[in-house]
Parts: sequence; structure tokens; C-alpha cells
Amino acid sequence: MSTENNKKNYKRANSNSKVKKTSQNTKYKSKSSVKNTNAKPKKQYKKKPVEKVAKPPIKIAFLGGLNEIGKNLTVFECNDDIVILDCGMAFPDGDMLGVDLVIPDFTYLEQNKDRVKGIIITHGHEDHIGGLPYLLSKVNVPIYGTRLTIGLIENKLREHSLDKVSLQVVENGGHVKLGCFDIEMIHVNHSIPDSVGVAIHSPAGTIVHTGDFKIDCTPMSGGMINLSRFAQLGDQGVLALMADSTNASRPGFTATEQTVADSFDTLFRRAKHSRIIIATFASNISRVQQIINCASKYDRKVAFSGRSMVNYMNVAKELGYLEVPENIIIDIDRLKDYPMEKIVLVTTGSQGEPMSALSRMAYSDHRKVSVGVGDFIIISANPIPGNERTVGNVVDELLKRGCEVVHESMYEVHVSGHACQEELKILHSLVKPQYFIPVHGEQKHLRKHMDIALSLGMKRENIFIGDIGKVVELSETQMKEVAAVPSGKVFVDGLGVGDVGSIVLRDRKHLGQDGLIIIVASLDVYDGHVISGPDIVSRGFVYVRESEGLLDEVKERALDILEDCAERNIHEWGVIKNKIKDDVAKLILQRTRRSPMILPILMEV
Amino acid sequence: MSTENNKKNYKRANSNSKVKKTSQNTKYKSKSSVKNTNAKPKKQYKKKPVEKVAKPPIKIAFLGGLNEIGKNLTVFECNDDIVILDCGMAFPDGDMLGVDLVIPDFTYLEQNKDRVKGIIITHGHEDHIGGLPYLLSKVNVPIYGTRLTIGLIENKLREHSLDKVSLQVVENGGHVKLGCFDIEMIHVNHSIPDSVGVAIHSPAGTIVHTGDFKIDCTPMSGGMINLSRFAQLGDQGVLALMADSTNASRPGFTATEQTVADSFDTLFRRAKHSRIIIATFASNISRVQQIINCASKYDRKVAFSGRSMVNYMNVAKELGYLEVPENIIIDIDRLKDYPMEKIVLVTTGSQGEPMSALSRMAYSDHRKVSVGVGDFIIISANPIPGNERTVGNVVDELLKRGCEVVHESMYEVHVSGHACQEELKILHSLVKPQYFIPVHGEQKHLRKHMDIALSLGMKRENIFIGDIGKVVELSETQMKEVAAVPSGKVFVDGLGVGDVGSIVLRDRKHLGQDGLIIIVASLDVYDGHVISGPDIVSRGFVYVRESEGLLDEVKERALDILEDCAERNIHEWGVIKNKIKDDVAKLILQRTRRSPMILPILMEV
Repeated sequence: MSTENNKKNYKRANSNSKVKKTSQNTKYKSKSSVKNTNAKPKKQYKKKPVEKVAKPPIKIAFLGGLNEIGKNLTVFECNDDIVILDCGMAFPDGDMLGVDLVIPDFTYLEQNKDRVKGIIITHGHEDHIGGLPYLLSKVNVPIYGTRLTIGLIENKLREHSLDKVSLQVVENGGHVKLGCFDIEMIHVNHSIPDSVGVAIHSPAGTIVHTGDFKIDCTPMSGGMINLSRFAQLGDQGVLALMADSTNASRPGFTATEQTVADSFDTLFRRAKHSRIIIATFASNISRVQQIINCASKYDRKVAFSGRSMVNYMNVAKELGYLEVPENIIIDIDRLKDYPMEKIVLVTTGSQGEPMSALSRMAYSDHRKVSVGVGDFIIISANPIPGNERTVGNVVDELLKRGCEVVHESMYEVHVSGHACQEELKILHSLVKPQYFIPVHGEQKHLRKHMDIALSLGMKRENIFIGDIGKVVELSETQMKEVAAVPSGKVFVDGLGVGDVGSIVLRDRKHLGQDGLIIIVASLDVYDGHVISGPDIVSRGFVYVRESEGLLDEVKERALDILEDCAERNIHEWGVIKNKIKDDVAKLILQRTRRSPMILPILMEV
Repeated sequence: MSTENNKKNYKRANSNSKVKKTSQNTKYKSKSSVKNTNAKPKKQYKKKPVEKVAKPPIKIAFLGGLNEIGKNLTVFECNDDIVILDCGMAFPDGDMLGVDLVIPDFTYLEQNKDRVKGIIITHGHEDHIGGLPYLLSKVNVPIYGTRLTIGLIENKLREHSLDKVSLQVVENGGHVKLGCFDIEMIHVNHSIPDSVGVAIHSPAGTIVHTGDFKIDCTPMSGGMINLSRFAQLGDQGVLALMADSTNASRPGFTATEQTVADSFDTLFRRAKHSRIIIATFASNISRVQQIINCASKYDRKVAFSGRSMVNYMNVAKELGYLEVPENIIIDIDRLKDYPMEKIVLVTTGSQGEPMSALSRMAYSDHRKVSVGVGDFIIISANPIPGNERTVGNVVDELLKRGCEVVHESMYEVHVSGHACQEELKILHSLVKPQYFIPVHGEQKHLRKHMDIALSLGMKRENIFIGDIGKVVELSETQMKEVAAVPSGKVFVDGLGVGDVGSIVLRDRKHLGQDGLIIIVASLDVYDGHVISGPDIVSRGFVYVRESEGLLDEVKERALDILEDCAERNIHEWGVIKNKIKDDVAKLILQRTRRSPMILPILMEV
């Protein structure tokens, strides 16, 4: 994993960093010198004697993105100023029944809203911008990002009818001054253009946060990640590095986006008599650019399917992030005007999402496209863990209809947007931070990323494995965990935000697993005797005709209990209902080994 | 993929096969010559002139194992005799809420039970034996299998209190005569000892079915697959090959089980100061054997955790399929009597199943074992598609507790039990069948397996891609699909078999997604006016306190409808209930964008 040699390098860099940081503290205040990102680190810094200046500490609170994939939100605090980095959403796990999306708990930010100076966004993916509409309705502060990122946010806020928000475009390499913070945007490679990492210059020192990144020497657009700026910062001294851990378990390098171009070319030639349908992430604008390039080369028209695909492409085209030859894009309604072999359809649904365009095609439920023999389908994405099954099912359905399907690792039709182990090592070695905090990943990824830092010579005590709610305080002399802040997963279901919690989910799970049996009876208001019922209604339990005998037994048992209670002058409904619940549950369990929800409802007449 | 050369070979074999089959038809009747599986094909067969003997066709019906993983069940019919091959179960998909397991629809076998001569089982995995208790309660016929297989079935039937079943042990290489069928057991490699493929000799010709198999030249026990017998059969002429498609998408060869031994050795040395916990499939007896060998070498005691693990190991030990040095196995209750570093705990839960021993350890819910720093955990299995998420979550929980965890492809701690592409090619080339039917796999696997056969020179029209319920009729002159038979997925939920169907599941899904709102009212038996209620009860919808205003509105709306109906003399309850359902659903959707189940219940008093 590591050689003695690079361990030494890493250590030397660390031990030097304090000297440099002191000088860098002076530096970040001089705005002009910071802006000159290509300037060489000036020699006199190194010569300055080490002065012990009392610096304020910087606090970093995690509201999302640790021990989970998605809903990234990090809070930086220094001298009473707060800056937020990213504000994403996550998709619900399988056990979050009925939940549409998950956002961070914003309580801490609401409690401190007067101190929040602004929100910096690293790129326009949902796991970095999806929580904004919900945060802004509580904490309305300016948002800063690069041009495409702001364009995508604008589009999103419009959908949520949020128009009184200040959106600020910052150039790649530019700076944002928020309170005592100076945030510098540094170009990185990722699966969406205009992605940045940030250098957060503060009175406490500089924190480098990579955002989502990879190193791509030959990206489709925007040029290679600005490694030299990361190197400069490293030479000047970085207090802490926070880096993307998504692919920390994967050895080697992530392939360049260009490999996909070659695969597409091969497949377009192979499928020359077929209609080509390509599913990919709507946000993967570079991928769609490649598809358009290939379509242009092979003289095909391109149509888009899926609401988010159409949305993303509109914004990307408008802002010039998608180069589209004239007359190549056609509306999906015009597909029938062209022969099959002259068409490329770009669609959502690469994760097998049940409501997506590709799933609808697979299950013959798409209003405008029906697929079958003569369709060549490319799934240009890897299944996100947990989606393997749904993607597999969609592939099977397409195959049964006679489509040809290229998926998974059959061809190199997808590359990741995240750095693998060797890329991470390069970044660490350039930035040479005093402290390291792995971010963006589950526990297994954070640990692997820690192992990488350890292999480069960093000490265990200089690495912080965080969790949501945790807060870490950094100064040049120490890194320590301080009091936690409120955090959690807030569920969005329809229009409701946070009104579905653990009790509701527990009930949904119970109902979903075993269904329910309702026992309803009208009781005499005076003596408690049964006037009508008990009636038994069941849903999701068994076919009623299969269970008639059993439900008759339930009815009798309930009637016995009600009459018995009336005789014994037990009129407290809580007591009666519990008795019915317990007895009936026991009966049902015995007969069926199932535990439906038992719901007694009593009415007084 | 293929060379012109092997294409030619394949074709030549096929064109020769008819000659051989005619003679082989004579052969299968002579029991003694068939039993001598090592005998060379006799020369005079080849010299016989081609006679056109009118042979009866053989029908093959698929009740499970096609377009799905699991619940394998194939039916062979010739001259009015029926033989069943395997009778498995499948695990429920995520959308089969509350279902414990899935079995085939046995209707066709019940309808023809007088013709069923017996059941042949290829090996003791649940997807091949798990349906037996349910089939036997309807069609009680003798079961034939190798020794370990029958031992495992015996154990299973005992749990279901089924004791009046005829279980027949057949030696590896032995024959079973059932009606006009002569079924020959042929040793194969797989992830459980004593696995066989079969040659089904019938008046129509010989069908070779591989069962689950791989080619392992150095297996832990039982020796290499009897490739020479497959070759002999090929030389004598095989009407059809049915072969395992599970790994048909994977290029190359499946590694030998011995590779795992080396990995275990390395890891045992690395973890010398830790307790070692290894999760694997309970049925993977060879894997457990390797763990015991390694434990013995490094002087550790072995304990088992998980009911199925204990069960399998008892049967395997009893029948001599597990070699256990004296005093090495200890009861799980005695763990505390030994130092941590002297223990190996072998556990279920390699798929992250919520109720399994490993999951309980991860979530601090295991009664006897608590894990943390000092535990070295090896997950010796790959996640089955769909389980990646749950396995990942268990790994994360273990890491958070400070355990070291080895999982997935980090080391070679698991090899598959199924043949990859090169192995399949070898088998095809040896068996040289006239027809080919890929089995055991989803559509994508069946198609890939077809591609392999095509690449070896087989003609498309000689390949049958089936589905459950489909029936194919084979003779030496043609293969054709004939009328389908009843088939499907029968759900087992608790004690109920088949009483949970699509309507119940739809209701469960609806309840699980959005919960329910019950509207209950007592109406005057004479004029229909409301006497009590309407009362509103909701579960799994929203926190009640969050929704009080909304539920009050629902109440008012329902009351309006009820009174309006009474005024207008509408007394048909179906009409009234539908009106309430529609109106309330609309109101709820508008306010919340959710669609809970609306359940109006009316009582007459």
C-alpha cells in the first residue's frame, strides 16, 4: 500500500505545514494575492520566523453526507460566522415506505440563522442541491456557485415557486467573501460540468474540501482538475483536508470519460440497423454530449425522454454547456417521422426506477415509445447499491421483448465520477494537510479513506471519522470533537416535510407486512352492550373467502369480550380495546402465524 | 468468442448424433450396460445401419427456475409417465410484502398425480428441495437423491412433521428406473457436496440436465465432476442438453474452492490476536470444512451460530461429510471459557438477512455474542443481487463498533458454485446435444447461455428459451412448443400457502406506502341519518397531531356526504361508500399529494 518513502514525504510536509500556515494566515486576508491562483508560493513566507499568533478555532458540523450516500451538508463556523457547504437530498432506503426523498434536519441552522452568511454549492447534482428549497424556506441566504450550478438551482427553485432568493454566479477560480471566510472555488472533474472543490480560507487556517471529484486528464469539457492550485495550497499550508470517499474502496484510477466515447462509437456501428436507446443520469451532461457527438457522426436524430432529462438538457443548452449541431434534436412526438435506424433516444431510468421512462418502456407503459425487436438499448450507468435488482428486472423485461441490451460491465459505457485510491493518494500528497476528515461516504468508505491517509504517513489522531450531528473543532494545535448539534433524516412525502416519522413508518411497515383487521362495534351509551356489530373488515391480510371461518371466529371472540365487559361494568374503552387487540392477535397468530395490525373501533350510540 | 474450428466440431457432432441416438435407444434399456458408466461406447453401435424407429416424443414442462433465480422444478413426460426433477423454493422479491417464501404452482402435478413416478433431487440446496414439504402434502411419491441430499431432505421433512415419505438414497453414478425413464446420477462440482447432474434416458432419447454445476479440478471433497461420463453420453448421442445458466454472463472460469483455503490461511495469520467470525451460507459444507481445517491448524475452537448453520452441520457431521478433529467444536454458550484469539465463530447472515445471527451481532441484538474491537469478521459469500444494500449496512454497523471486516472482493474469500462461460463451452462441446435448453437463470442469463451455444455452432432453431408454464416437446426430428400448463408463484406467509395473492399484496403495498384513513359512522336503520360519528382513525398516514386540522376536514366532508345521501334517499351503501372514498381521496391528495387507503365503514343501528 505505501512505501517508506512516501510516508516520509507526507510526514515532512506535515511537520512543515505549521510554519507555512502562519504565513498563509496573513495571506488569505490579502484578497488580490489569493485571486492570483497561478502565483508561485512566495519565498519570503518560508523564511519568516515561526510566530505564535493566537488564532480562533474553526468548527465543522456535519448535517449530512457521513455514513450515508447523499444529502451532503457541511457547516463551517469561525468567529461567529457560519457558512454552509452544499445542501443535498438523499433517496429513501427500502424501509422508508412511501417516502419520496430525505433531507437533512435543519434545526441547527434555523436556531442560528442570523449567523449564516451564505451557502456555497460545489456542483449541480441532487445530492448537493436537492435540499435547498426546503432550507431556503427557513433560512433564506444567498447561494453561490458556478454558472451551470446556479442555472440548475434556478430551475429547481422555480419549480418550487421560490423566487426571492439571491443566486450568485462565481467564476471557476473565483472567491466569495462571507464574514470572516474567504471561499475559493477550485475546478475539479466530476460527472457534471462546472464542478468545484473549495479552499475555505479562515482566520483559523485553510480547509480544503474537494466536493465530489475525480482526476480526468482528458475530460469532455472544462479541462483537467486544477491540481496545481491544490499543490500551491499544500505548499502554503492546509489545516485540514476533507475529501470525497465514495470510491475509496476501489483500487487504481477512474477511467477518463473519453473511454465511453470509444465504446459508443463501437456500439453505434454495431447497431446500425437498430434504433438506439441510451439510459443515463439526466445530470450527466458530458455523457449526453458524447451521445450527441456520436449521433451527429452517424447521422441520427436525438430525442429526450423523461422529465428530468428534458429539464437538465434545457438548462445545459441554454447556458452553453451542451454543444448541439443544428437540427439534430427532435421532439419525442416526432419519432415516427424518422426511420428507426436514424434515431437515438436518450432517456432516464438507468437505475430501474419504477416510474422512469425506461421502466415504462420495458413494461409497455410508456405513452410515446414502444420497444421490441430492432431496439438496441444501452444502459450507460452502473446500478447504485440497492438498485441492482430493479435494474436487472428492467433488463430482463427488455430482453423478453426482443430488444438487444448492453448493460453493466459488458462494454465500457460508463465511468465513475469519483476518485479511486490512486487519485486520492495524489490529492492527499499535494494538499499535505495537518488534519484529515474523510467525507461523502458510508462507514466502509470513510474507513478505507482513512487507511489511505495512514498509508501515506498521517497519524491516526490527526484523522477524524465523523457522523451526522458531530462537530469537530480545529486549531493548529489540536483537533477535538465538541458538543453535537441536532441532526437526522427528515422525510419528505408528497407535500409533507417531516410529518412522517418513525411511528408512521413503523405503522406503514406493519400494515405492509401483514395487513390489518378492523373490528368495529356500536355500543349502547348507557350499559355498554353491543347494539350493532362487531363487524370485521380486513385488508392485506388474506383473501376474504379463504379466511371466512377465521374472521367469523374473530367476530365471535370480539362479541364475547364486549358483552363480558358490559356485564362486568368495564366501560373504559382503552381497556376494552386492548383486551380485544390482545385476544384477537393471539388467535390470529395461532391460526396463521401472522401478526396483522388489529384495530378495534368502538362507537357510542 | 468462437473459432470456425470449434463451430465445425460442434456441427459434425450434431449431424452424427442421430445415428448414435438410434442405437442408444436400444442401449438405455439394457440396465447393466448403462450402469457401467466407464465403459467405452461400443464400436458395433457405430456400425449399425440407421433405422428409422418410431420413437415417442418427450415433453418437458417448466414449473420453476426460468426467468427467476430459485424454485427449480422441471417435469419430464414420456409414454404417460411423469418424473419430477428438483422441487425448490425462492426467496420473495422486495415487493412481495410479508411473504416468507415462494414455491411453484403444483396444480399441473396435482391434476396428473397418478402419472407421477417419483422426484429426483440433484442436490440439497433450498432452491432445489425447499418446495418438497408443500408438494408432498399433495403428491406423495418417492424421492431419490444422493446420500447427503436425502439426509438434508429427511431433516427438512421432520421439521414439517412429514414422516410418511419414501426417501431413496442413490449412489453417485447410480440409476433410478421410473416408468419408462431410466435416470442416471452423474457427479458434478457445486458449492455443496454430493451434487449430481442427470442423464434422463427415455424412449425418446437421452436428456442431459446438469443441475447446478461447475468444473472444479481440485474440489475440497468428492473429486472432480465426472466429465468423462458427459463425454461418453455425448459420443453416444444426446437429444437435448439442459444446463445451468446462473453464471453464463461471466467470462472465464470459476476459481477452485482451494483458492479460498489460501485466503483463509493469510487472514487467520493476520488476525492472530482477534476472535475470528466468518459468515457464510449454512449449506456450504465445503467452506465450513475449510474453516475447520484452518482453525485446527491455528489451534482455535469452532462454534456455530444460527439455526440453519447448526442444522446443516449436524446432518453433514452425522453422514460423514464434515471431517471434524476431536474436541474442536464447542457450543456457543462456552465461548466465554476461551480467550478471544482461540475462537472461530461460524455464522449465518452472509446476505445481511435482518433476522440472521450476523445482523443481530451488528445491531447488538444477539443473545450470546456481542462484537466490537478485537473481532475480525470475514463475510465469505457474495451478495445475491438485491442484497447488496443490506449486506453493506451490516458491514457499516460492524465497522462502527470497531470490528475489522473483510467483505466482497477484498480477498478471495468466496468462489461461486456455478460454471462460467469457458466451463459451459467445455460441457456443451462434450455433450454435443441435438437441442439445447438453457435453464436456471433470469432472461439475461438464458440469453447469454444461448449466445454461447450459438458461438459453438448450434442453430438458433435448435435452442429453446423457455418460461415457467411453457412446455416443449422433443423428438429426434423436431422441437416444438406445445400447450402451456398452469404455473406461477405461490406465496407462503406463516402457515398460509397460496392465500396471499395479488390483491392482498396490492393492498399491503398501498397500506405500506401511504397508510390508511378509516371513516366509521353509525346510521339510523330507518332514515339513514347519522346517529354516531363519523369518526376518523388513521394509521401510517401522518402524525395525528400534525394532521388534526386535515382530519377534521375529512370528518366534516364525510358527514356532509352522509347527510346529503340521507336527504336524497340514497340508501345503497356501496354508492355512499364510494362517494366518501372518492371525495376524501381527492381532498387528501390536494392537501398532501398522498393517496392513503380510504376505508369507509358504515353500521346500522
